[in-house]
Parts: sequence; C-alpha cells; structure tokens
Amino acid sequence: MTLHAPLVSPVDPVKLEKLAEVAVRIGLQLQQDQDLVMTAPIAALPLARLITKHAYMAGAGLVTTFYADEESTLARYRHAPDASFDKASGWLYDGMARAYESGAARLAIAGDNPMLLAAEDPAKVARANKANSIAYKPALEHISNFDINWNICSYPNPSWAAQVFPDLPLDEAVRKLADAIFAASRVDVEDPVAAWRSHNAHLAKRSTWLNGERFAALKYTGPGTDLTVGLADGHEWHGGASVARNGVTCNPNIPTEEVFTTPHARRVEGTVSSTKPLSYQGTLIDNIQVRFEAGRIVEASASKGEDVLNKVLDTDEGARRIGEVALVPHSSPISASGVLFYNTLFDENASCHIALGQCYSKCFLDGASLTPEQIAAQGGNSSLIHIDWMIGSGEIDIDGICADGRSVPVMRKGEWA
Amino acid sequence: MTLHAPLVSPVDPVKLEKLAEVAVRIGLQLQQDQDLVMTAPIAALPLARLITKHAYMAGAGLVTTFYADEESTLARYRHAPDASFDKASGWLYDGMARAYESGAARLAIAGDNPMLLAAEDPAKVARANKANSIAYKPALEHISNFDINWNICSYPNPSWAAQVFPDLPLDEAVRKLADAIFAASRVDVEDPVAAWRSHNAHLAKRSTWLNGERFAALKYTGPGTDLTVGLADGHEWHGGASVARNGVTCNPNIPTEEVFTTPHARRVEGTVSSTKPLSYQGTLIDNIQVRFEAGRIVEASASKGEDVLNKVLDTDEGARRIGEVALVPHSSPISASGVLFYNTLFDENASCHIALGQCYSKCFLDGASLTPEQIAAQGGNSSLIHIDWMIGSGEIDIDGICADGRSVPVMRKGEWA
Repeated sequence: MTLHAPLVSPVDPVKLEKLAEVAVRIGLQLQQDQDLVMTAPIAALPLARLITKHAYMAGAGLVTTFYADEESTLARYRHAPDASFDKASGWLYDGMARAYESGAARLAIAGDNPMLLAAEDPAKVARANKANSIAYKPALEHISNFDINWNICSYPNPSWAAQVFPDLPLDEAVRKLADAIFAASRVDVEDPVAAWRSHNAHLAKRSTWLNGERFAALKYTGPGTDLTVGLADGHEWHGGASVARNGVTCNPNIPTEEVFTTPHARRVEGTVSSTKPLSYQGTLIDNIQVRFEAGRIVEASASKGEDVLNKVLDTDEGARRIGEVALVPHSSPISASGVLFYNTLFDENASCHIALGQCYSKCFLDGASLTPEQIAAQGGNSSLIHIDWMIGSGEIDIDGICADGRSVPVMRKGEWA
Repeated sequence: MTLHAPLVSPVDPVKLEKLAEVAVRIGLQLQQDQDLVMTAPIAALPLARLITKHAYMAGAGLVTTFYADEESTLARYRHAPDASFDKASGWLYDGMARAYESGAARLAIAGDNPMLLAAEDPAKVARANKANSIAYKPALEHISNFDINWNICSYPNPSWAAQVFPDLPLDEAVRKLADAIFAASRVDVEDPVAAWRSHNAHLAKRSTWLNGERFAALKYTGPGTDLTVGLADGHEWHGGASVARNGVTCNPNIPTEEVFTTPHARRVEGTVSSTKPLSYQGTLIDNIQVRFEAGRIVEASASKGEDVLNKVLDTDEGARRIGEVALVPHSSPISASGVLFYNTLFDENASCHIALGQCYSKCFLDGASLTPEQIAAQGGNSSLIHIDWMIGSGEIDIDGICADGRSVPVMRKGEWA
C-alpha cells in the first residue's frame, strides 16, 4: 500500500481550512447562487478542495476549477514545435470572460514555482507570455475593471517552497512556507474573520488620509533612487476591502498590506532601483535600474533576466509606463518575516512598489463612470501587462508634493511619517 | 520526507508510456500544429502528462487539459444549494465547441469511479446530468458528427480499481486494472502501433461484409430477449479506424472490438434484457428489461437504479429510442478477461450492445452530406444522450433479415456465424 496510504502532509490542515474559509468569506464574499471560476496549480489540490467545499457551503451555484500542471508546461517548452509559442487558449479565456459577464466570481490560487522556466529559451517564454496576455485580455479586463468580486490566495506548493528555502529538506521547507503564508494571510489567529475586519479598517484609515491630501506627486529618495511619480488627475487611493462594480465588498488579495493608486502615465521622472528580485512567469529579474523621462522608461538594466525585462518592456507602448503606485511600510509583517517569497503577491506586500502596465480604473474618483478615453486623458495607463516590482526598503524617504509645490512627509526610512 | 518522496506506483511506467503513444499516434493521429483539448480525472495525471509530452512530440500546437476532481464533485452534492443542480458550465463547453471548430482534436481519459454518486440523491443526479447534457450538446455534436479526430482511452484510477476488484488490496487492484487496460488497449505487445494496424484491418473486413449484405434488420434471440432492430435506410457499418470529416484517420475508442451502425429509430420491436450492469454517471443500473413498440421504449424496468433509468428515458423524446447497434463477439479479448469494468468503454467492447439516444451521422452512406432532416427521415435518432448498454452474451443468436425477408445467420451463441 505504498501508493494510496494517506500521506502525512507538513501543511497544518486546520489553518488550511481557515484559509479556505477566509478566501471565500472575506476574500470573495461569495454570494448566494453565485458561480465561481477557480484556477490553481495542481499541487494546490488540497486547498482547492477546501475552497470548493466552503464555496458551496456559502451558497455557490457552480464551482469550475482549472488546474495547471508544471510538468505539462515544461513538456511544451521541451517538445512543442516552434509555432506553439505564438498560441494561447483564447476560446478558454473568452469563455471565462463570458462567465464573469454572467456574474461568476473569480479565485486564483497562487503558488507556482517561480523558477519553472528559468532554464528555457527566453525568446519562447516571451512569445508565449505575449500570446497569452493578448488572449487573456478580455477576461483580465473584468478583473482590472473590478466588474466582479475576485481574490488571489496562496498554497505552499513544494516546487515553490524549494525555491524559498533551498537549504532545507523539502518537508521542512513546505512547513515553513505554509506557516509564513498562514501568518501573512492572518489565519493563524483565533478569529481570522475578525482579524481581517480590523486590518481592513486600518488600511482604510491610511487611504482616507491620502485621499484628503490629494498630492499631485510622490517624491522617492534613497540609494539608487531619485524618482518623482506624478499622480493621475482625480486619482483615488484604495487599500484592503473594496466594493466591486457588482456591489460585492471583497478583499482581492490575501495577504494585502498596501494602499495604492494610479500614477500619471506621462508624469514620471528620474531613476529608480528595485529592492527585491522580481519573479515573472518563471524567470527571475534582479537589480532592475530604470530611468523615466515624461513617464516613459528610456533606459533599463538588470543584473539577472535583463533579456526578459527588455522583452517585457517591448510588449506594447504602455509596458514602458507605470499603472500603479503602492505604499507599504517596511515594518509590515511580511517584510518583518525576512522571507523573500519570489512571489509578487507576498513580496509586493513587503515593500513599496510600482507596476508596469495597465492601471486600475477603480483608482479614480467615480472611476466606474469614466470611459477608457477619459481615463487615458487623466493619466491612466493602458497595456496588456501589469507587473508589480519592489522599490521600497528601510532606506527610502517619500514626500507628498502638493499642487502648490508644498512638500509633506509621507514615509521616512520606509515607515509612515 | 514522507510527502514528496517518489511514490512507487503499481502502474507499469513503460506500458503507460506506450498507451500515451498509441493514444496520440493511433487514437488521435494528431496532426502537425493541431491543438488538443484533453479531459481527465485528476488521478490520471501521470497518463495526462505522458499524452501531453507525446502530443507535443507529434507536433501539437497547444494542449489544454481539464482535470475533474471526484472530491469536489461530492462537495457539490453534499453542500451546494438546490439551484446548483440545474446549472452547468455552458461557457466552458461553448468554448470547447469553438476550439473544435478551429481545428482542435479531442482526447478524454476515462477512469472515473463508476459508483461515485451511488449514495447521492438520484433526483439531483438526474437534474445535474440533464443540465450538463444540454450545455454540452454544441461541443458533443462535433464529436458525434465526427467533425474532428477524437479518442477516449483509460487510466486505472484507484477509485475505479477499488470497484472492479473490491476484494483485493488497493495496490493490487490498481495493478490488475492497469494490466487489463494495457491488454485490452493492445499496448502489452512488442509493437503496439503494428498490432493496432492489424486489428483495424480485421474490423474493417467485418464491416465490409455487413455493408455488402445491406440487411434491413437484425433479429436477436436469447434468454429474455426477442428483439428485431430495423436498420436505418442507407446505414453504413463502421469499426476500428475511421476517417473524420477533417480528413484525419483516427481510432476514437481505445480499446475497440465493435462494428456498429445506425438502427432505424421507428423500426425496433420486441423485448431485450441487459447482460451486464450499466454504470451511468456514477450510478449502477442492473438487469434492465425493456419493450419496444415502433422503435419506442414503452416499458422499462431494472433491478437496480430503476429511478435513474426512468429519468434518463425522460430526458427527451429521443432518449426512448436507440441510435446505435453494435456487434462484438462473445470471445473478444475483453469478454474473455472475465473482468466486469463498470465502464462502458470496456464493457461495450465485451458484448453486443445498443445505445439509447443520439445516432452517429457518420454511420450513413455519404453521411457527411446529409442534413439533420434527411438523417431523421432515414431513421437516425436525435437526443441529448447517447448511452450504450450491453445485450450480448454466449447465449445470443443474431440473424440478418434481408429486404426480401431472407434470413442470414450473423452470430450464433455470441460468435460470428
């Protein structure tokens, strides 16, 4: 009975079930009879099953889950004909878009091996990513427009844990990553739902203050960074829980520590350095340095993954401009854990960051009623991509620049001023 | 390292890879740059990975796989609100239909637990099946019309093996089921591809003889069976490899032992008894007895699953009429194995059978150019369902009735006459 004996998993089943419950009740706030479209790495099956159960217990109509398999992805890179890398499953993504239009919610379980494609041909990786981005756009727009309630949470996939804790035996690495996920996701407490309500109230206070100040720009100063980020006209700060256009209040990211808004795509000047490596579709990009002129990246380098970075920047015109700016104190629990997750969902919540590409229309005053043209006129960026990268640390100062030129301290040495 | 140590599987990896190769090269005859849509139980991951690899080696454009999880299906029956059971993922099936229209091939890995839903409410099972059949119809029509190359093959899912060999330890049950699948699928020989070519030639000889005879009807005689099945006007017998409308010669079923054609939906008279239990969507239906008048089932009983049988017959008007008649000698290797698989793909190839519901337009002379109205006029049946059930045994005699009333022995005591 070597094969089918119950396996002793290093992942705490009680906390895993709490994570499933938080994902459904706080993350999605899934509604009675609402359908759910879920995606997950196949290794995340235990969490996907618990989310399915809690979704149905919360009244879900139908849960449809797509599992991605890392070995099958590698088989494509190793054996598929060249033409494969310009293909994507548009019929599937269009179907998902239709499901969202019919009212389905969306949940993604993150946890892919961040280095899966590190040894593959970067040109093929870039082509496959681009084809996928184009095909996925109609579905992604419903997410970035916040048409529906959606959530991303994480599972400690062994292939991911092995990257985060390369020196530990695999079982111990999975256990440590699981514990880090549970802590950051606030499910290692007595009442996770109450903990999330209080956390949401705290983030709302920060964004309310920033919305009151109405800064025209943020000025970042630190090692390798001298950057002024103009904010979009009529921008609005958000953080924590948010009301989707379908009226449901959800927490799109578990964990989340950020308050964020839309920068002005044509008013970013200066240089900035990344403070953590960026894991992008299975490739690591490290020590990014870029220079902006009038919002556009005119110089870019990286100590690792520079090829992929440059291909990303060439995706489309908007890929060289930024669509999001987010503030996270250096003392955030994820940052304090000292763990580098190689996963944006975590690393972006350990550090101030900006995102290349598509903006969120949600981050405008009265954003739901603005046309794409109005959003662009007010400074909102448009692109096939949306890639967060980390520029915060304990050495960064941030000042808010008011319309009249007055400067207000926002962060000092990485902490709220 | 209890969790991630490589598990010793009782499934022979060499034969499993041969099965993957036969499924791609003989089953699908996948074409250069052709996409593939695959479905599989999540337990069949090892076979799905090998098929993915061989598909890309054969030149596949993009392989997209949907995994179904039995536990998630059960979670729906146990926790979902009542309204869930009238829902289906139409957006997904429509997407699949679109993929086939764009040229994708289709492969299904069978192996679900045949008793999965045996303890669930039959009314909910029937509603969910009906909603699914309706939503799936546009995609299924591309299969039943043979628009594309498609294939079904099987994996020894432990939950299925436990039903087939309930008295064995699970590992041994899986090994025995795997060996039975490999033998029936002709991959336990030196050169499986050559073995399939010779098997296809043998089946072609049988269907050529039947097509030459042009019987108006088949008359079945045996215990509990006295049945005359009129054949459709312009029917054509098929068996083994077949040319899809996209021009690709494929073997839709692995294994296959049958030659089959389209009966006349309004010319079936008499009584017939099932000779093996039928596993339908997780429910077992046993000892079926039905009486036909003018092609329509007017009386139906079963010793087990009669509720589900009657709900199936009420799906639509065509569900009470038959759409396929198939001849399999009682000495076929699958029948000779003596194993009852509780899986139609195997059990139908161990026994003569008929199918309730939808006919195959392929089984008409010049079928590709016939309209649905012409097919109906010639006796082709139309329905949301297509359910094969077994009526053959070593005690059945079959005679071909010619248009002039002459009778020709086709089978005696279950063997070709």
